[in-house]
Amino acid sequence: MQRPLSKEEQEWVERTLEAMSLRELIGQTMQDHAGRLPFKGDDEAALRGYLAQYPVGSFFIGGEVIQKAAGKAEDYRDWTVMLQRISKVPLLFSGDLEFGAGSAVKSLTAFPPLLALAAADDEALAYEYGKYTAMEGRAAGFTWALAPGTDLLLNWMNPVITTRCLGDDAGRAARLSAAVMRGMQDYGIAACAKHFPGDGVDYRDQHIITTINSLSEEEWFSTYGHVAQTIIDQGVMSYMTGHIALPWIDGGDAAAKPVPATVSERITTELLRERMGFDGVVLSDALDMGGFLAWGDYEKRIIDCFNCGTDVLLWPGVRYFAVMEQAVADGRVSRERLTASVRRILEMKARLGVQFTSTAGEDGMALPLLDDKLPPKLDRQVRQLSRELAGRCITVVRNRTGQLPLNPQTVRRVLVIMLNKVTEGRKYERMNLFVEQLKARGLQVDILDEFEPLTTLRQWEQSGISWDAAFAPYFLPLHGMMNTARPVGEAAKAIWAMQHAETIKPIGISFASPYLLQDIPFLDTLVNAYSLHEDTVELTVKALFGEIPFQGNSPVHADSQDDYHGSRGLQKT
Amino acid sequence: MQRPLSKEEQEWVERTLEAMSLRELIGQTMQDHAGRLPFKGDDEAALRGYLAQYPVGSFFIGGEVIQKAAGKAEDYRDWTVMLQRISKVPLLFSGDLEFGAGSAVKSLTAFPPLLALAAADDEALAYEYGKYTAMEGRAAGFTWALAPGTDLLLNWMNPVITTRCLGDDAGRAARLSAAVMRGMQDYGIAACAKHFPGDGVDYRDQHIITTINSLSEEEWFSTYGHVAQTIIDQGVMSYMTGHIALPWIDGGDAAAKPVPATVSERITTELLRERMGFDGVVLSDALDMGGFLAWGDYEKRIIDCFNCGTDVLLWPGVRYFAVMEQAVADGRVSRERLTASVRRILEMKARLGVQFTSTAGEDGMALPLLDDKLPPKLDRQVRQLSRELAGRCITVVRNRTGQLPLNPQTVRRVLVIMLNKVTEGRKYERMNLFVEQLKARGLQVDILDEFEPLTTLRQWEQSGISWDAAFAPYFLPLHGMMNTARPVGEAAKAIWAMQHAETIKPIGISFASPYLLQDIPFLDTLVNAYSLHEDTVELTVKALFGEIPFQGNSPVHADSQDDYHGSRGLQKT
Repeated sequence: MQRPLSKEEQEWVERTLEAMSLRELIGQTMQDHAGRLPFKGDDEAALRGYLAQYPVGSFFIGGEVIQKAAGKAEDYRDWTVMLQRISKVPLLFSGDLEFGAGSAVKSLTAFPPLLALAAADDEALAYEYGKYTAMEGRAAGFTWALAPGTDLLLNWMNPVITTRCLGDDAGRAARLSAAVMRGMQDYGIAACAKHFPGDGVDYRDQHIITTINSLSEEEWFSTYGHVAQTIIDQGVMSYMTGHIALPWIDGGDAAAKPVPATVSERITTELLRERMGFDGVVLSDALDMGGFLAWGDYEKRIIDCFNCGTDVLLWPGVRYFAVMEQAVADGRVSRERLTASVRRILEMKARLGVQFTSTAGEDGMALPLLDDKLPPKLDRQVRQLSRELAGRCITVVRNRTGQLPLNPQTVRRVLVIMLNKVTEGRKYERMNLFVEQLKARGLQVDILDEFEPLTTLRQWEQSGISWDAAFAPYFLPLHGMMNTARPVGEAAKAIWAMQHAETIKPIGISFASPYLLQDIPFLDTLVNAYSLHEDTVELTVKALFGEIPFQGNSPVHADSQDDYHGSRGLQKT
Repeated sequence: MQRPLSKEEQEWVERTLEAMSLRELIGQTMQDHAGRLPFKGDDEAALRGYLAQYPVGSFFIGGEVIQKAAGKAEDYRDWTVMLQRISKVPLLFSGDLEFGAGSAVKSLTAFPPLLALAAADDEALAYEYGKYTAMEGRAAGFTWALAPGTDLLLNWMNPVITTRCLGDDAGRAARLSAAVMRGMQDYGIAACAKHFPGDGVDYRDQHIITTINSLSEEEWFSTYGHVAQTIIDQGVMSYMTGHIALPWIDGGDAAAKPVPATVSERITTELLRERMGFDGVVLSDALDMGGFLAWGDYEKRIIDCFNCGTDVLLWPGVRYFAVMEQAVADGRVSRERLTASVRRILEMKARLGVQFTSTAGEDGMALPLLDDKLPPKLDRQVRQLSRELAGRCITVVRNRTGQLPLNPQTVRRVLVIMLNKVTEGRKYERMNLFVEQLKARGLQVDILDEFEPLTTLRQWEQSGISWDAAFAPYFLPLHGMMNTARPVGEAAKAIWAMQHAETIKPIGISFASPYLLQDIPFLDTLVNAYSLHEDTVELTVKALFGEIPFQGNSPVHADSQDDYHGSRGLQKT
């Protein structure tokens, strides 16, 4: 549970609460998106007018992890200082700091993703992962990380949380997510566990439709419930609900449509708040996601979301104020319910110390930035952590024929079969990092990266070319809205071609889904590297050639025989 | 079972067999691909030399159904006449005549696919489907249809047989596939049931890897086994084995790799030939498919394929002759086994009457072509069948709010949300047929077909545009090597956007997978039309506006509540 507030903190909360108008109360319960303001973000006069009309309680800043990091740390910090100066009640600034502050801010440090952290499986490392995220993050103006992920990758087909979670084992995920959370919160940033009641069971994407966690009550408590209870008991300050239904507790009108947690009182209040004892802030997932839109019209969605027990609604847009004012006026939303949420939000603000923001807007608890980074010694420590994790996550899933490590003396010419293309029109350039690393070793590299790979491989083989090793690197961007994590389109064609090549035995390397064997079961050799993180790619190549050991342990059952029966998705007939 | 041969037929078989050299015997057991000759196909001198060196027993001609129909009927016929004139033993000419002869030859009649036939569920119609395929096919030189499909769509995720099969009910599939087969064989074309032991259980594609039919013995016999036994008992002349494993009967070395039927003696000889009593020709599926390549090097693959009980190998390439000569010489292949296969092939030729081909190569049993079509009266009958089936297959899967049929008096402006794009770079133009049909009715059509559909829809709605109806047509090409049948990429993004549109209630129309509700469960209205067949698209629009009734019955459980639990593919933990 969270630490009790001090007497001074408690007094600040009550004093602030008493001074608020209805509109200001409502404002605390929404989180705005800094990237969606209807004017240039650095226009101070416009911002003053905006906040006077829409006194929101928090802003989301930085890039979205599902898209990409963006911007400079100093710019974000300066913006937050200006906003604090303007705002009557101190604001919180949240970001998608899932894999280091660099996953939201381009100039900060990006860590390998959570699944890599799970492959290293070291609680001390996980604590530092959270700690350095917080130190960099708060220096750049963030006070609220929408992290860590507490989801479990129970369905290998899940297209959303692929490498954004801590694997499929609830014990490991509980231990590591709680450590990341403690690291964050010990260093000045509120963590937000996500998602409740847990993503990773459905084969679909809550960005697209409402998804379903179909576990039974017993199964849920021994998996997602265990992770949630652990991180709650250790004091996580906030929890994000997902657009995910949990039929064992809220079946709704099952024939019509599932009830996502973001509108379910049974899930959010009865289960999370009452049964599990969560006393922090409940933040909804983004309200423009497909999983929420289907619930009803805007007004119904918003009011159901608030009334089910949500404290803060993520990105409802400023229409929210009028809808909520009307709903309070006509009794659809109770003032007590509103005050209870705002009190929880202010308590979180007090715990983060934002009440001590100077009148100039300065955050006395933030580390300074030098050249857009932390001071040199700390900066080195953060970068070092990133590299250490990169080295420790790389996992040999299969090495059946003892092909690894490769002999650098005899391997001179290699074939790279690119599994990073969906169609002729769309491929993922970052795979070039891998090819560059091979070339930097002086290797002769042939690249198979085209529309008719079978024909080309045949021609190459018939012309007498042979290779000392062949690599089949796979990449699909982290949640690229593909609705799948599997190799599709041209990548699948290349899998066909890989088997034709009688002169080669391809080494699979997944820089994305850890479940590549589901679609390429014939691989004798597979390495999982979890991301195209720069250090990871460099160290993967070193490990392939035996210069460093492979140290990761697979955080999912990536090579279970049970997985190859081919009947996934088989209908009951 | 097949009809016994007449005394004359039997004599022709034995006489022909006795006159054959070893190389000629070997040649009967391979099927060549007319599109892969190493010279121009109309070069008679080159063909003479080729057949003298490689006396193959049959040629595949026409387009491949998984790609597209190609060419003119007269050109194919002329080519087969020339080949028969040259060949010592009369040849067979096979084609992917799955949905009418038009699925292989562009100028002939393309029918709606098998799944549409299953939606109409009329045995008499199925017989005509086979009959007219054979009449047009034989007129164009074909004597062997690689059809009908006997697969069952038990796994909604299966990416290969989506609309190429007769649904998920074994009784219906048995009835209809046998009727198609009888229609074909009564009118001069050998049918080839495919695939044994049955595709449709795996979520993967045997073109890419060896797939697995994971049913138990009991389950298999009550589903695939029932279909196979029915079509065998009614006398199908040939059966195509797939690169599909059947672990209940041949587990192989399960840890290493699955054993596809194409190399499995247990599946091909013990099950198909002995236990089920199949006495026709076993043809392998194409040997350049990924599902076969992984078995071993070329020589091992070929010899295992022949020795397991295959009579004819599909597209092994002419390397086949040398490998088999050596294998017979050193005893790895027995002469008795070879003779037994050739006898079965010659018996099939005798049943088809190709021994009566004139010395000029003319096929006396083929109907004449006029203007590249059947004579006018017959041609009209074939086209009429195609249109009749188109009208009878269109299926209302859901009409929860009674939105269908639309009122042509009040619907003036419509929105079309295109679900036919994987990425910015790849969309399927044939969907334009649907839009053209709407415009031809005088409707004002707005098309949402772009990279950020959510933003655009918002803008349109905010600008006050509203629609009287909205359609969300879905298409992914039949086996486009996508490794998925689901809406992915841009199509998935459009599903997100569909829910934002508060002014519309989209009507889903699938021109591909019948299982669209798995990814778009919120649809209140869904029509399955199974293909972009021209008549079907035109009649779908008529049915939407109430001008003709919807007559199809879903041949799969397309709207079963069991399907929406989201846990497809969930790992056992």
